[in-house]
Amino acid sequence: MAKHISKQLSRSRLVRKRGKKVGASPGTLVHIGEASTAETQMRLISYNQDELHDHLIDSAANCRLPEKPNLTCWFNIDGVHQISVVQTLGDNFGLHGLVMEDILNTDHRPKIENHDDYLYIVLKMLQYDEDAAETRTEQVSLIVGSHYVLAFQERTGDVFDGIRKRLSSGRSIREKGADYLAYALIDAIVDNYFVLLEKFGDQVEFLEEELLSNPTPSTLARIHHFKREMLLLRKAVWPLREILSSLARDESVLISAETRLFLRDVYDHSIHIIDTIETIRDLLGGMLDLYISSVSNRMNEVMKVLTIFASVFMPLTFIAGVYGMNFRYMPELALPWAYPATLLLMLVIAIGLVSFFRWKRWL
Amino acid sequence: MAKHISKQLSRSRLVRKRGKKVGASPGTLVHIGEASTAETQMRLISYNQDELHDHLIDSAANCRLPEKPNLTCWFNIDGVHQISVVQTLGDNFGLHGLVMEDILNTDHRPKIENHDDYLYIVLKMLQYDEDAAETRTEQVSLIVGSHYVLAFQERTGDVFDGIRKRLSSGRSIREKGADYLAYALIDAIVDNYFVLLEKFGDQVEFLEEELLSNPTPSTLARIHHFKREMLLLRKAVWPLREILSSLARDESVLISAETRLFLRDVYDHSIHIIDTIETIRDLLGGMLDLYISSVSNRMNEVMKVLTIFASVFMPLTFIAGVYGMNFRYMPELALPWAYPATLLLMLVIAIGLVSFFRWKRWL
Amino acid sequence: MAKHISKQLSRSRLVRKRGKKVGASPGTLVHIGEASTAETQMRLISYNQDELHDHLIDSAANCRLPEKPNLTCWFNIDGVHQISVVQTLGDNFGLHGLVMEDILNTDHRPKIENHDDYLYIVLKMLQYDEDAAETRTEQVSLIVGSHYVLAFQERTGDVFDGIRKRLSSGRSIREKGADYLAYALIDAIVDNYFVLLEKFGDQVEFLEEELLSNPTPSTLARIHHFKREMLLLRKAVWPLREILSSLARDESVLISAETRLFLRDVYDHSIHIIDTIETIRDLLGGMLDLYISSVSNRMNEVMKVLTIFASVFMPLTFIAGVYGMNFRYMPELALPWAYPATLLLMLVIAIGLVSFFRWKRWL
Amino acid sequence: MAKHISKQLSRSRLVRKRGKKVGASPGTLVHIGEASTAETQMRLISYNQDELHDHLIDSAANCRLPEKPNLTCWFNIDGVHQISVVQTLGDNFGLHGLVMEDILNTDHRPKIENHDDYLYIVLKMLQYDEDAAETRTEQVSLIVGSHYVLAFQERTGDVFDGIRKRLSSGRSIREKGADYLAYALIDAIVDNYFVLLEKFGDQVEFLEEELLSNPTPSTLARIHHFKREMLLLRKAVWPLREILSSLARDESVLISAETRLFLRDVYDHSIHIIDTIETIRDLLGGMLDLYISSVSNRMNEVMKVLTIFASVFMPLTFIAGVYGMNFRYMPELALPWAYPATLLLMLVIAIGLVSFFRWKRWL
Amino acid sequence: MAKHISKQLSRSRLVRKRGKKVGASPGTLVHIGEASTAETQMRLISYNQDELHDHLIDSAANCRLPEKPNLTCWFNIDGVHQISVVQTLGDNFGLHGLVMEDILNTDHRPKIENHDDYLYIVLKMLQYDEDAAETRTEQVSLIVGSHYVLAFQERTGDVFDGIRKRLSSGRSIREKGADYLAYALIDAIVDNYFVLLEKFGDQVEFLEEELLSNPTPSTLARIHHFKREMLLLRKAVWPLREILSSLARDESVLISAETRLFLRDVYDHSIHIIDTIETIRDLLGGMLDLYISSVSNRMNEVMKVLTIFASVFMPLTFIAGVYGMNFRYMPELALPWAYPATLLLMLVIAIGLVSFFRWKRWL
Repeated sequence: MAKHISKQLSRSRLVRKRGKKVGASPGTLVHIGEASTAETQMRLISYNQDELHDHLIDSAANCRLPEKPNLTCWFNIDGVHQISVVQTLGDNFGLHGLVMEDILNTDHRPKIENHDDYLYIVLKMLQYDEDAAETRTEQVSLIVGSHYVLAFQERTGDVFDGIRKRLSSGRSIREKGADYLAYALIDAIVDNYFVLLEKFGDQVEFLEEELLSNPTPSTLARIHHFKREMLLLRKAVWPLREILSSLARDESVLISAETRLFLRDVYDHSIHIIDTIETIRDLLGGMLDLYISSVSNRMNEVMKVLTIFASVFMPLTFIAGVYGMNFRYMPELALPWAYPATLLLMLVIAIGLVSFFRWKRWL
Repeated sequence: MAKHISKQLSRSRLVRKRGKKVGASPGTLVHIGEASTAETQMRLISYNQDELHDHLIDSAANCRLPEKPNLTCWFNIDGVHQISVVQTLGDNFGLHGLVMEDILNTDHRPKIENHDDYLYIVLKMLQYDEDAAETRTEQVSLIVGSHYVLAFQERTGDVFDGIRKRLSSGRSIREKGADYLAYALIDAIVDNYFVLLEKFGDQVEFLEEELLSNPTPSTLARIHHFKREMLLLRKAVWPLREILSSLARDESVLISAETRLFLRDVYDHSIHIIDTIETIRDLLGGMLDLYISSVSNRMNEVMKVLTIFASVFMPLTFIAGVYGMNFRYMPELALPWAYPATLLLMLVIAIGLVSFFRWKRWL
Repeated sequence: MAKHISKQLSRSRLVRKRGKKVGASPGTLVHIGEASTAETQMRLISYNQDELHDHLIDSAANCRLPEKPNLTCWFNIDGVHQISVVQTLGDNFGLHGLVMEDILNTDHRPKIENHDDYLYIVLKMLQYDEDAAETRTEQVSLIVGSHYVLAFQERTGDVFDGIRKRLSSGRSIREKGADYLAYALIDAIVDNYFVLLEKFGDQVEFLEEELLSNPTPSTLARIHHFKREMLLLRKAVWPLREILSSLARDESVLISAETRLFLRDVYDHSIHIIDTIETIRDLLGGMLDLYISSVSNRMNEVMKVLTIFASVFMPLTFIAGVYGMNFRYMPELALPWAYPATLLLMLVIAIGLVSFFRWKRWL
Repeated sequence: MAKHISKQLSRSRLVRKRGKKVGASPGTLVHIGEASTAETQMRLISYNQDELHDHLIDSAANCRLPEKPNLTCWFNIDGVHQISVVQTLGDNFGLHGLVMEDILNTDHRPKIENHDDYLYIVLKMLQYDEDAAETRTEQVSLIVGSHYVLAFQERTGDVFDGIRKRLSSGRSIREKGADYLAYALIDAIVDNYFVLLEKFGDQVEFLEEELLSNPTPSTLARIHHFKREMLLLRKAVWPLREILSSLARDESVLISAETRLFLRDVYDHSIHIIDTIETIRDLLGGMLDLYISSVSNRMNEVMKVLTIFASVFMPLTFIAGVYGMNFRYMPELALPWAYPATLLLMLVIAIGLVSFFRWKRWL
Repeated sequence: MAKHISKQLSRSRLVRKRGKKVGASPGTLVHIGEASTAETQMRLISYNQDELHDHLIDSAANCRLPEKPNLTCWFNIDGVHQISVVQTLGDNFGLHGLVMEDILNTDHRPKIENHDDYLYIVLKMLQYDEDAAETRTEQVSLIVGSHYVLAFQERTGDVFDGIRKRLSSGRSIREKGADYLAYALIDAIVDNYFVLLEKFGDQVEFLEEELLSNPTPSTLARIHHFKREMLLLRKAVWPLREILSSLARDESVLISAETRLFLRDVYDHSIHIIDTIETIRDLLGGMLDLYISSVSNRMNEVMKVLTIFASVFMPLTFIAGVYGMNFRYMPELALPWAYPATLLLMLVIAIGLVSFFRWKRWL
């Protein structure tokens, strides 16, 4: 277990390598994150009540708002390691240099920024890696304009399939604007946190049962492992509260009153998630205490066995030693009943000591 | 004990299974909670100063405000696992889609929402399960309109019998409106928390006595069990404070000034409950420390006994061993007073060592 | 000690029995607290600059404001277990139903309520029980009107004798109104907390000395006992801060500007008390750590003694055992200098091992 | 060490004896603090740009503002145990009864009070007692009027010598008013905290080195001692933050805008001091953990030695015991090579066991 | 390791020596920090869009704004130990006495002060010392005027080389004013914190692996070492949050709206850094718990081995002892099958005990 976990550590680094970044000019575009050679994938889903277009875009230069108005556009960009792509997109949509810089930096704290004609939101999309029993983090940057949403992801694969399906199946979502789309994306990310917590919750409860029935050193390593995961989870989720509260209450013209109602709902979820994380953390803390105590208890048991054995046999062995001495004048040795009497004495001593320990509640 | 507790764990899950929910559209009605095949029971108690009607409603479609005005209506719905029922009711009373979604989700954090013509309140009704010495949670959703209250519960059986009795026995409660009824329901739920705390308080104090007189490993498991229960209790109760503070102070037209006074009283109770939970938690924390310390103390005692036995008998056994050696030239062996002298020496050594340990305060 | 403390626990319950209360209508008058058969005692001290009347009142019905104006009236009621008495008094003085309910409930969190023509204040009067080294709590409810103060206590006996003496000895207190009288009562209660803290402080420092010179398991039980007491004390005192801050700053017309100055002074005291409680708690936490560490230290000492004895005597006993073997061909046995040589070898081994342990700093 | 520290405890009491105070009327002048028979010393330094007068005042009655205007007056009073002196001074300067009461009570929490024509400030002057390695607290009460400052101290001897020197050497301080003088006094007190922290910091770092190189039980007692000192220090310093923030920002006409700038500087220092105290406390907490862990480590070492000795010699002694048995028919005994073979067997077992422990990394 | 670390302690003192400072007049210029005999180095880089001048200044007197307007000037001063230099510079630029005092005091808490025509900012520049695995702190004081920035550092060598390069390579930075330059300096300092955290993060994760695979006492010393470093780091970084929030939001005319946008970005970074520090601290706390638990686990293992050896061999040795007794009448001794029977008995006992321990899961 220990080996297994430690190997995984290299993946979920506490701090991501910044490399060239330090000392560079603010606004310098530098990618911070896992290196990748994959091509950036761009996909545009544009829709209104009546129509829906869904196609991949071949180059960043073509990634711009369609001429036809009345369409809500969702640009999904998988991969932020190609600086030129982000640069071109940023220019196309008039993004501030710092925003482009932050999109490239995948070790960013979740946050929201209120620019004049767009909102910039950074979130963490979490995925549960069954093998390592740990979380994989992917940063999602959302640019929410009046008629478009840009969603930058680190890798292909996300939690938005449900939204794509709803869009194509022509449900009410297409009647609403870009702000509702942004809400739907955020909601999908936050809903996925519940899946994660469910899995962690299950495993922690399983661990608790194991702890109460048969604790092993591996139990300890796993408690530590989950404490660590909850720590990283909390770091990713905590800022969400602020972001959603700000989205639901502040007065950006980009968010309609109706969507705010929905955002308030996600806000409630985020509080619920934070509560649950804290509860699991407290529970893990309690389990650690329990582990330490049960180790002490077991050592106590072992010690008692040792003490009883030693205390019973040492006096007996001593007596045997005495009558094993070779002094010439030891009158007892010649008595015919001396041997059985000695054995009896030994028995009495043994019974006496065992009774004493039983009285002391050690047996 | 350990087995017993762990079996119970499956019931009071840390996170309830969300199943199909994730990825679904916001506003999609999905039930999250324990599956059930029971029929949803609907009951309407409508009253004013002069009359009182109490009857079961056979279908959700008939679950609507009576035509006769001047009646305060309390719709009580037992069971939220039938989506269609909640859907129909929501349509009848013009509830927002998100509210219906939240009613179905029984793993919701307690909260209050201020809609235009109704308040939506989520609470946790707690019941103490004597066998497992743990809490069972049931979510109660209240919709408070100008003349009606809808109370959704997960199961049949609640803490509202006292209110039903007061309504039928024609006391002052019938002179007051729906806001007072809502207050009465909340008050009944909160008052029931005291019953719970009383039981936990008793058991924790009993455990404390046991800890001071005769701690066993089962004591430890129970301390952990209660810590866990308090954790889950706190999670359920903590948001209450905010809800009641909001109800008692905000300016919803649905709540009269007089009822606010009563709500302030429940608010005080909620603070008191939170205080008590924190006090019990702190006490349990202290008891854990005490347990660990007394285990250490006991081990110390055991170690001393072992050390004394070993330290006294090892030198004696050694001496006996020396005179058990078979060297041909051991002049002492032939001396007539050698044997008694050796025994005397052994006695002196034993007494000396015991005195030494007594001086060291080990005896 | 352990027994002694645990017996006391039944008195200072974590949560007081609520009995019939749950399920009852809000505003239903039910007594929560220790049952008592004593008659409720009512005493009225009415005064102004020129005169002072002090007499017992025989029945609750007669407990009303005297006809003569210009008198400040202090009604002191010892015992709140007779519901009818509180009911009658409440009617006489026009108290709200909830206030009466709270007066009867002696397990209430300290609080202040601002009613139109009176203030309702709940406080905890604490008394130190020397025998059990613990605090006894008594709830005091104050109703402060424009010309009168009602003080409800649970039992006869209080900390107000100083005030009665000052009133009868005609000092400046009689020139001031009911608000100043209320302040004087609160001040007496709060001042008494210092007496308590002084006693706890003394005992904790005594315990600390004992801990540093000669810790025993009873020391541990007493640390726990004091931690528990501080927990309950804090629960009683913490809300005071809020109450006094509210009294000193809010704009109730019942409190004059001059009296506010005095209340600000009590407010400062309450902060000081809370600080001191927290300091004592932190100190007790440190003492627990110290206890655990010194138990470890002692076990270490014991272990070293055991290890040294075992390590020295085991090799020697082994050698003696070897030459106690009965092999026919053991040439050493026949050598005349073999016995002294063996003894010498044993001595060398013993000295070598002791030197080794001394070098390891174990001796 | 333990003895030494515990003896000191009586001096730095957690709570100072209040004696007669409890039950007394608010405003009753009672001295709380160390009894003293020393005469109260009064000294007036009055100055303006052109002149400086410095003389002792013989009686409290003469302790009043000089007739000559334009002089800033610093009355320094050493000793507050003579109630009549404080009473007279209070009357001379028109102090409120509660202020006089607080001056006499030397167990007061640091605070500031804004009276109409003077400010009342309570501070703690701390002195480091080298012998006991602990802090001695002295309460300083400042009354800051428009042209005068009254400084009440508990004892002769303070940290204001630098200010007296600057006043007499005619530097810029004399151009400024009473508010600047008050600032200078506060600044001297706060600056002195740095001296204290420097000393504690040194000692804590010294202790840390000792802990890492050679921890002893006395190390533990000293960690506890410093934790306790930091606790009391924090209690004295924490309220300072509030006081200085209030002084630097509130709009008392007694403080000029220029002096506020200086006060903001002292405010920054107070924050810095609190930060440092918290850092030292956290460090001490970490040192305690380290101590406990290294005790465990040492016990582990001792246990290994014991286990190795016992595990190696017990089997060998057993073998020797077997061949020491007196059965008549033990054919091995007669074999000429049995003795050397047995010795060899013993050697092999010993080497095998030691190798086993080495493989287990116990050696 | 322990020795190594403790030697380093003298460098990163908890509290820097204040020496002569205490008792001195506020505003007295005294250097607090490491003594140095190096000459203070002054360097001026002045620039606008069209030109750039970079030269060393020989004396403090010449360190003043150039006559030519339209130039943004960056005065960089390495070394604050020469009081006269700071004095002259302060006079040249009209700095307040307290500001000069604070520049000289290198043990200052990071802060910002809003003076009329300049901002005064104190920051900590941190450098990672690879050898000691610890942080070296250097205080940087920035004076930001309308056209100039003064940067005071303690030593030569800083993190500003990137900025110098950008200035000389004529990039956009030269189009912006002194406020942007100040931002760039702050950004460089904060960015460098990430480098530090990266290194600490790496080492902590390395330590975690070691802890899980092979914990040694040196692991413990290093956990403590990193906890200490994080403590000092947090103390340096925490106030940053406040400073940058104030800079980004307050309305100083010296900072343009555009620069505020950049400062908000650095503010986000500072929050991220604080989050990461807290996460690492929590992780270290968990690692300490893990260490203590694994020490307990190991001791448990050792104890079990000891107990098994002792429990198996003690009864056997006792039996051997019995038949080594020299009683004349021991009939078993003469039986030919007694010896093999005894050996068999011993074997049975040994197997029985080992089975028992295996059943108890000790083997």
